[in-house]
Amino acid sequence: EALNASGSGVAGVGVDQELISSVPSHNPTFVTRNFTDAEIVYCRAQPSPSSSFAARWAGKEAVFKSLGVKSKGAAAAMKDIEILNDENGAPAVTLHGDAKAQAQTKGISKVLISLSHSETVAIAFAQALSS
Amino acid sequence: EALNASGSGVAGVGVDQELISSVPSHNPTFVTRNFTDAEIVYCRAQPSPSSSFAARWAGKEAVFKSLGVKSKGAAAAMKDIEILNDENGAPAVTLHGDAKAQAQTKGISKVLISLSHSETVAIAFAQALSS
Amino acid sequence: EALNASGSGVAGVGVDQELISSVPSHNPTFVTRNFTDAEIVYCRAQPSPSSSFAARWAGKEAVFKSLGVKSKGAAAAMKDIEILNDENGAPAVTLHGDAKAQAQTKGISKVLISLSHSETVAIAFAQALSS
Repeated sequence: EALNASGSGVAGVGVDQELISSVPSHNPTFVTRNFTDAEIVYCRAQPSPSSSFAARWAGKEAVFKSLGVKSKGAAAAMKDIEILNDENGAPAVTLHGDAKAQAQTKGISKVLISLSHSETVAIAFAQALSS
Repeated sequence: EALNASGSGVAGVGVDQELISSVPSHNPTFVTRNFTDAEIVYCRAQPSPSSSFAARWAGKEAVFKSLGVKSKGAAAAMKDIEILNDENGAPAVTLHGDAKAQAQTKGISKVLISLSHSETVAIAFAQALSS
Repeated sequence: EALNASGSGVAGVGVDQELISSVPSHNPTFVTRNFTDAEIVYCRAQPSPSSSFAARWAGKEAVFKSLGVKSKGAAAAMKDIEILNDENGAPAVTLHGDAKAQAQTKGISKVLISLSHSETVAIAFAQALSS
């Protein structure tokens, strides 16, 4: 296809939702295994840390889906998908380690993310862009 | 840019959510009318068939919205929007019949999809790309 | 960035969800401050005006997020983000005033939107495209 040859710019999309109560953000092992130090500092400083951890967790799952790579289940290094806010307060994705390598292999140069949470549910949408 | 000259590549987006309990996946008429044989085989083999049918149903609605065509209501052939998993386990859209013809008329060459479900709600996001 | 230089076409994404009961669509001050006359006419003519107002409110929030600009909180002019249906019944975004100016500054030429609501929750997804 012409589309595939030229690259449309959009490589994949990902959506995820999480019940805030189902994300074990009170569990230090879960938190330190899956969130970077900067993410932990940010989430703990928010009005509702559990909501912030849940939204970022949904975000990591959505980013993972947008990359279109085979899931390794519990072995997937979600810590390699870091979501921090930019200077405008909008969430931005930085990939590290395996996630970065897999993205590069697929020609993905950037992943856009948006997060939202209500009292009970966090949802996230991610979009992987190719260069 | 070739990309910009030809259009942005993104033709439309679609989001949908469904209460899993509201999708009548136990009704054989509903299922055979709206899902392909391959979709039915896949959903029935999942741990929670009702969740899988609901997620795909949300996916079909989201794809339909992303095409930006006039709804025919109950007459819309949702079976023409087939969502099966690719070799990485990620959902992929194939259009048939009227849906395929309408997409071609609008210059849409590919539709990306992502699905998510909780215990009670299925959500889907679709993105139509033009060549 | 090389990515920015070539223009991916996709400048930002935004997702939002709102409990329909939490959007004060029965409050005339809230409605006239945040919705255009055409939006009000449309929503009031729908089977469930409160659901339609909530879906459009979620849509405005999602569009705002997709623009990637700094939030002004309650001062943000959500009325500048107008969501009306096109000839196919699909929602379409028109920006006015500050929102239009901010989009132009960022090179955003179009924002795609999709809306969905269940009995209780409205969700929206927006995508900002650059020219």
